[in-house]
Order: sequence, then C-alpha cells, then structure tokens
Amino acid sequence: MALHLRHLADGQWEQIETKVYKTEGAGTGFKDIVRRQLLGPETSGTSFELRYFEIAAGGYSSLEIHAHTHTVIIARGRGTAILGDRAVLVGANDVCHIGPGEAHQFLADREAALGFYCLVHKDRDRPRAPTDEELERLRGIPELARVLRV
Amino acid sequence: MALHLRHLADGQWEQIETKVYKTEGAGTGFKDIVRRQLLGPETSGTSFELRYFEIAAGGYSSLEIHAHTHTVIIARGRGTAILGDRAVLVGANDVCHIGPGEAHQFLADREAALGFYCLVHKDRDRPRAPTDEELERLRGIPELARVLRV
Repeated sequence: MALHLRHLADGQWEQIETKVYKTEGAGTGFKDIVRRQLLGPETSGTSFELRYFEIAAGGYSSLEIHAHTHTVIIARGRGTAILGDRAVLVGANDVCHIGPGEAHQFLADREAALGFYCLVHKDRDRPRAPTDEELERLRGIPELARVLRV
Repeated sequence: MALHLRHLADGQWEQIETKVYKTEGAGTGFKDIVRRQLLGPETSGTSFELRYFEIAAGGYSSLEIHAHTHTVIIARGRGTAILGDRAVLVGANDVCHIGPGEAHQFLADREAALGFYCLVHKDRDRPRAPTDEELERLRGIPELARVLRV
C-alpha cells in the first residue's frame, strides 16, 4: 500500500508525532533535538527506517559511534557535521554518509535550526559514546576540537 | 570512510554527474527528466542506492511497475504523484513510499520543476510498463485519468 506523508511546514508532517531524541544506546550529551519517525517496518514494511531529526539553534546531537551506517540528507537550516575525523559545514540538500565505527555528531548553527533525514537499517547495533581514548584522539584534531560538544 | 556531498544549488552537487534517466527496464514514455546517482554500493558500500531525479516543468517520469519498493522524498518544486490507485499533489519534504507492484509516476507542474530523492535496494527487479489491461484499469479511475501520461 503506497504511503504519502504530507509535509506541513518546518519539518512537521501530517499524522507524524514528535518523539524524544533517544530511546536506545548511549552517546555523549545532546541538546534541543527531537525525532520524528517517518517510515519503518511497521508502516511501510521496509527493511530500513527513515527518521527526521531537528536540532534547534545552538543544539546538537550526541557524539556517538556504532557499527551500522547512517545516511543523512539535510532538509533545512545550517550547521556543522562531525564525520569521522572531519568537521564540515552543512546546509539544505547536502548528503552525508557515515561508515561503520566512525564517530559523528550534528550541531545546529547558533542562529539556525538544523533539520535532517536519517536513514538506518531496522536491525542495527546500539550507539555508544566514544571511549576516553577515542575522545582524546578526536580532541587532538584541531578542526574537531573547535566544534565538538560532549 | 565518511562521505559529504555538498549541494551547490538547484539539485546539483559537487562531483556528481547528470545522467540519462533510464538505463534499465522499461516503462511508458517520459519527458524532460534527469538522474543523479548520489550514493550506491560503489561509493558508500551501502545495500541501497540514493538517486536524485529532476523533472523539468511539464515533464514526467515513466508510468511503471516493479516488485521492489521505492521511497521518495521530494526535495523541491511541485508536482503530482501517481501512487497505485491514487494521485496526490506533492511538494518539498513530502515523503512517498511505493509498495511492490504498485504503478507509479511523477509529473512536474506546468510551471515548476520537481526534484526528488529516490531510495532503492541495490538488488532489484527491472521496471516494466503496465499491461494493456492494467492501463485500462488505471484509466478507469477518474483522478488518475486526469493526470497520467503515457
């Protein structure tokens, strides 16, 4: 059965609830971020889940690591993405792919929210926070040290 | 290895080529549509492919049927989507999911291009055109008869 999720405005869809950001796994701290579940096995029968996350201005997601991959499409706003050992500025329609074991974090700009789609397989391992050693290494990379929040 | 595909403007990305719309399978006619391959097994190692399609104002994709599912996120513009036995108006950030065997077609408005992301599994069956009987049935549905183009 085909589905059509109508976007209303500003990262809200008809009949889609706003949920808390994290329900599984662990990571470092996060700030001002919500989750909306758009597609998943229970609605579309797909093997993946399509979620939308929105980070308010000045907020950020957890810095986290896991074996499953993330594919992200930025929907709106502006921010910074930590992708492994790099930090990149991101805006609408940028596409990011995070491979297994790569630390990552999304941070909204101070003046703009950051909304993005995130695609994951339905069967996936739980995110974890970086170890102290991993965090020390990441903080040793100047472009990451400037932006990462834990 | 993490990837970052930077969006330039208007459905164009750094280092992403524009390709012809169809390289496999068959469907009915199409008009003024291009394809850009964003992610796939050869670049991201994923089991799915993320493609971007852009239909110029007045153009349309093939009306087609296949067993694999399509997930579509509208990136920009306005148009109409035929999703199985329904026709719906679509705009930016609408999400469509097309189940196995459901006929579908995307049509840009006369005055606006329609750009969308389409997610498919890397292993998939070839699209086919509807049979004469299927087409006759679809044409018998008034809301489809008004919009479908073959």
